[in-house]
Amino acid sequence: MALLEHIDNPADLKKLNQGDLEQLAQEIRQFILKNVALTGGHLASNLGVVELTIALHYVYNSPEDKIIWDVGHQCYVHKILTSRREQFHTLRQYNGLSGFPKRGESPHDIFETGHSSTSISAALGIVKARDLKNEKYNVLAVIGDGALTGGMAWEALNNAGRLNSNLTVILNDNEMSIAPNVGAMAAYLSKIRSNPRYKHFKRIVENVLRSFPLGGNWMAEKVEKMKNSLKYLLVPGVLFEELGYTYIGPVDGHDLSMLIRILNRAKQVQGPVLVHVVTRKGKGYIFSESDPSQYHGVSPFDIENGFGSGNRKSKLFSKALGTHLAVLADSNPAIAAITAAMPDGTGLSYFKDRHPHRFFDVGIAEQHAVTFAAGLAANGMQPVVAIYSTFLQRAYDQILHDVCRQNLPVIFAIDRAGLVGEDGDTHHGVFDISYLRHIPNITIMAPKNTAELQHMLEYSLQLRKPAAIRYPKDSSWFMEDLPSKPLDSLNWEVLSEGRDIAILAVGSMIESAFQAAEILEKQGISPAIINARIIKPIDNNILEELIQRNICLWVTMEDNVTEGGFGSSISEYAYVCDSPVKVLTLGIPGSFIQHGSVRQLKKAVQLDPASLAERISTFVRKETLDAALPKGTN
Amino acid sequence: MALLEHIDNPADLKKLNQGDLEQLAQEIRQFILKNVALTGGHLASNLGVVELTIALHYVYNSPEDKIIWDVGHQCYVHKILTSRREQFHTLRQYNGLSGFPKRGESPHDIFETGHSSTSISAALGIVKARDLKNEKYNVLAVIGDGALTGGMAWEALNNAGRLNSNLTVILNDNEMSIAPNVGAMAAYLSKIRSNPRYKHFKRIVENVLRSFPLGGNWMAEKVEKMKNSLKYLLVPGVLFEELGYTYIGPVDGHDLSMLIRILNRAKQVQGPVLVHVVTRKGKGYIFSESDPSQYHGVSPFDIENGFGSGNRKSKLFSKALGTHLAVLADSNPAIAAITAAMPDGTGLSYFKDRHPHRFFDVGIAEQHAVTFAAGLAANGMQPVVAIYSTFLQRAYDQILHDVCRQNLPVIFAIDRAGLVGEDGDTHHGVFDISYLRHIPNITIMAPKNTAELQHMLEYSLQLRKPAAIRYPKDSSWFMEDLPSKPLDSLNWEVLSEGRDIAILAVGSMIESAFQAAEILEKQGISPAIINARIIKPIDNNILEELIQRNICLWVTMEDNVTEGGFGSSISEYAYVCDSPVKVLTLGIPGSFIQHGSVRQLKKAVQLDPASLAERISTFVRKETLDAALPKGTN
Repeated sequence: MALLEHIDNPADLKKLNQGDLEQLAQEIRQFILKNVALTGGHLASNLGVVELTIALHYVYNSPEDKIIWDVGHQCYVHKILTSRREQFHTLRQYNGLSGFPKRGESPHDIFETGHSSTSISAALGIVKARDLKNEKYNVLAVIGDGALTGGMAWEALNNAGRLNSNLTVILNDNEMSIAPNVGAMAAYLSKIRSNPRYKHFKRIVENVLRSFPLGGNWMAEKVEKMKNSLKYLLVPGVLFEELGYTYIGPVDGHDLSMLIRILNRAKQVQGPVLVHVVTRKGKGYIFSESDPSQYHGVSPFDIENGFGSGNRKSKLFSKALGTHLAVLADSNPAIAAITAAMPDGTGLSYFKDRHPHRFFDVGIAEQHAVTFAAGLAANGMQPVVAIYSTFLQRAYDQILHDVCRQNLPVIFAIDRAGLVGEDGDTHHGVFDISYLRHIPNITIMAPKNTAELQHMLEYSLQLRKPAAIRYPKDSSWFMEDLPSKPLDSLNWEVLSEGRDIAILAVGSMIESAFQAAEILEKQGISPAIINARIIKPIDNNILEELIQRNICLWVTMEDNVTEGGFGSSISEYAYVCDSPVKVLTLGIPGSFIQHGSVRQLKKAVQLDPASLAERISTFVRKETLDAALPKGTN
Repeated sequence: MALLEHIDNPADLKKLNQGDLEQLAQEIRQFILKNVALTGGHLASNLGVVELTIALHYVYNSPEDKIIWDVGHQCYVHKILTSRREQFHTLRQYNGLSGFPKRGESPHDIFETGHSSTSISAALGIVKARDLKNEKYNVLAVIGDGALTGGMAWEALNNAGRLNSNLTVILNDNEMSIAPNVGAMAAYLSKIRSNPRYKHFKRIVENVLRSFPLGGNWMAEKVEKMKNSLKYLLVPGVLFEELGYTYIGPVDGHDLSMLIRILNRAKQVQGPVLVHVVTRKGKGYIFSESDPSQYHGVSPFDIENGFGSGNRKSKLFSKALGTHLAVLADSNPAIAAITAAMPDGTGLSYFKDRHPHRFFDVGIAEQHAVTFAAGLAANGMQPVVAIYSTFLQRAYDQILHDVCRQNLPVIFAIDRAGLVGEDGDTHHGVFDISYLRHIPNITIMAPKNTAELQHMLEYSLQLRKPAAIRYPKDSSWFMEDLPSKPLDSLNWEVLSEGRDIAILAVGSMIESAFQAAEILEKQGISPAIINARIIKPIDNNILEELIQRNICLWVTMEDNVTEGGFGSSISEYAYVCDSPVKVLTLGIPGSFIQHGSVRQLKKAVQLDPASLAERISTFVRKETLDAALPKGTN
């Protein structure tokens, strides 16, 4: 690390010569590999942008020039070059560096990202603010070809293409999002990269035209015009040119000297410019180069041997979803499965292998995924859309307007619900209950374990109405031991009887409920534990039973924000009923939660067993005291 | 109407000859004009697609062939030709025909639309279901050039371009969404329409090539290849061709015989095909042709004279927003205003006139609008994004992830909140409180009248945090008489003192609260009326005061779904507080609400004054009785 240890900010970089820069690239690659092997993180995408990031910081002057990283998980090199090398070992750890750009960390992080396809919109806003304030600097959006399939990237490209402001879009084309890219744009980019016709055709036409006799006549004039038009039409990026961009590329994203030349050229262009950079995801590490999907987001691993086979398993819930859906589809030809660029992460790759014709990877395009499913359902299919909770936020309108309003039988398999840990505030799935619960016609479920997930999947298929099943990234081994029976109605399940209070727990909180109950029992409080597996509609029968048995202190537990969530629906209900029920609503508080291990984060928001028990016993003591006093005394 | 009265379904149409079809077009135009002048509705867009719709039903066999109308407000001709002519006078009226496609109305309406840019996704779903079931028929998406600026249309175009299924996209290019279109795609389409180079250049090149001596040599071979490539590159729709579509057009959308020829040709194409049809919005009626924006959605009017000047006013709240923002911007250079293709509807045209450089119409692109605003805010501006409540649903993720997570000072001016009336279930703004309230960092307000809207706008600008102000389409004249003072904190306002209960009313429900209170007073119930103008955070001080004064029966009123809404937040609060408060939550019930006048719809959901009073008095009687009985008796 002879060079890297002297690079504290982009200014240091500019003192290096070409050979130094190339050495630096190799040092950074080793540095990332070594660190991510220890901390886990996004490996392949960062190895792919080492030279590009160096070239950007060499040619531009951050933070005066503003660089926005789409999705943001490829910002490690950027962080290392902007004074955060020494904290880099704290990456993705509680109170450590975030794995994504963070305004609070550095002035070099002008705009925070996490979800895909936002960078051009943000960059255009920054550009327009710059121009209105009469300031001068460059603004760059670095966006992958995968993110370009997202609709809002198109909205921004379309808007920026016409406004004619100085804006640089760096298209980081690695042929991948997390999985290989799909769609017409991917095919188009591939054609630019690979088809010699594009490269050679222009020269041929020019030869033909040169051989044609010129003169002051009509034909010659036409031919001159034709030459200009051909130049216009035959550049590889005609699609981008048609949208108003000056297209430069494609350029090899690992050729530092070429990158620097091209970026210097882009700097001179007036109006919007798109630089097409071809990179290789996972570049420079044999295992990630050959299988970049598996090395997209990784847990700590052994550098010498890569993951081995152990690390490559799907998460338990995802696998349970994918495998069971594949089996159900054997006997039900109406089942189809849809992913938005996450065949492995969602477990749908199992389905894909078994039923390739009924499997659809639509690319990073959650909105389209949902309305495409609505179209399938309107024509007799039973589609299952598997999307992470946080990414499904982008299809809120489509869920409401296209699926639920038409009451179509689309099933949403909502993976990564609840706190996801190290990815942090852009990725926690802690809003889905609140953004779904108020939508008419939808049924929302959350299983206690993978067996129940599979039973819910079966039941959803029978419902023939919009249904959502939410489940966490990690499953609890403890809960896996609990039996699950096929569902025959939308009822809850009493897991443990109790005398004093009722804990209504959702999904991953059931384990915490048991652990908290153990503490409470020792304090003489006997809680019933109820698996509130149907979040909507709530099970009035069980609630009425509780009232009959004079259990009127209810505690709700969910890994979702308390506002508008499951607990909120119980509060809404409690006022409808005739009895003096009191509800303690436990969930994620109303603020964005940083990164860290799920255990640390749960403790931080007082959802760990000890805090839960403490909050419940305070509630019980207070309410019991209140009830003992004559009305109006407190 | 000699011909039209004999056309009951598309089969009747096929018996007509060319001249008849043209006469029919004129009869339909008159029929629509006559009816919409009486009922109100979407005029200009329907006058623009008369010939196109006739040609589609002439060439294709609906309902076997499936036609999906993007946005759907241009489906009137389709409805008239598919057995709904005789009910057409009930258009947009309570229990009458919807102004949008409705599956329940007719098998010719295969997929319901309302929000923009969904048609290609839905059509692709229907196509894939067709192919999986081995069925044979045509599937068409009819989409305007305006809707093409919406990101999900791009996601779908991109996906469909690669899947290579038989799918027909009819691009209805009228250079307008509601306002004239913006963006690079609009410029591109305009170039295709107008630039003779595109049309003539191909012929010229072919002449040049023909004049070149051919033979069995290398050059001749190259030239042959060149001819193919030129053919490929020089068609006008190169952008669509690059995305995998066979492009046909542009064709004059009012030339019936040409339309029929072109559609018959499109039918023969294998794989995805895009037919570019150029139409004139408002065609055939002098007033709407010359000012299609004003004749987009209309109230009843006089055919001979058009609207006159009276009808062209902005809605009161929209105008109050637009004019006041324009004035505030005089002294605050940080203010910018953003619309998604609705400069008139949102009242921002006033701002546009006064501050054109700080006004941005981004096209139908709500997601981009919001993140673009986030970019402006990240670089020192104070953007105001004015979008209708129902359309803002599409930017839920951007509000959460890009604005609120970064705590950026973006102000959302949410127009058309609450029931909007005749547009019906696709357009009611009855979810915004529920989809915003659980997002951390946002402040949500609702004014009682236009003066208060303006005070809230000022206060939001001081807050320098994410803020939303929601207000209805129509204002209540009664509420306009109430005074409003500048806000100095996030507090509520007691409008009327009372002894027995407290009505906490949001925005447009305040008028209903007063009317219901009048009835209740006669029954001996004395309600306090509180303007719950800050929806989030709630005003704990006023709530505590109520408890101190022993007013423990609270009634919330909102024109938003009760689930997860304002009332829900009061329920959440009431269970935390120490007192035996009971809450009656009144709002939109958990189902989608059809079209009709706002008055009719409020009555249907029991939010009219009489129903409100009845529900409240039942609540009060029951709770008073409960309190009088010993515990456990009921």
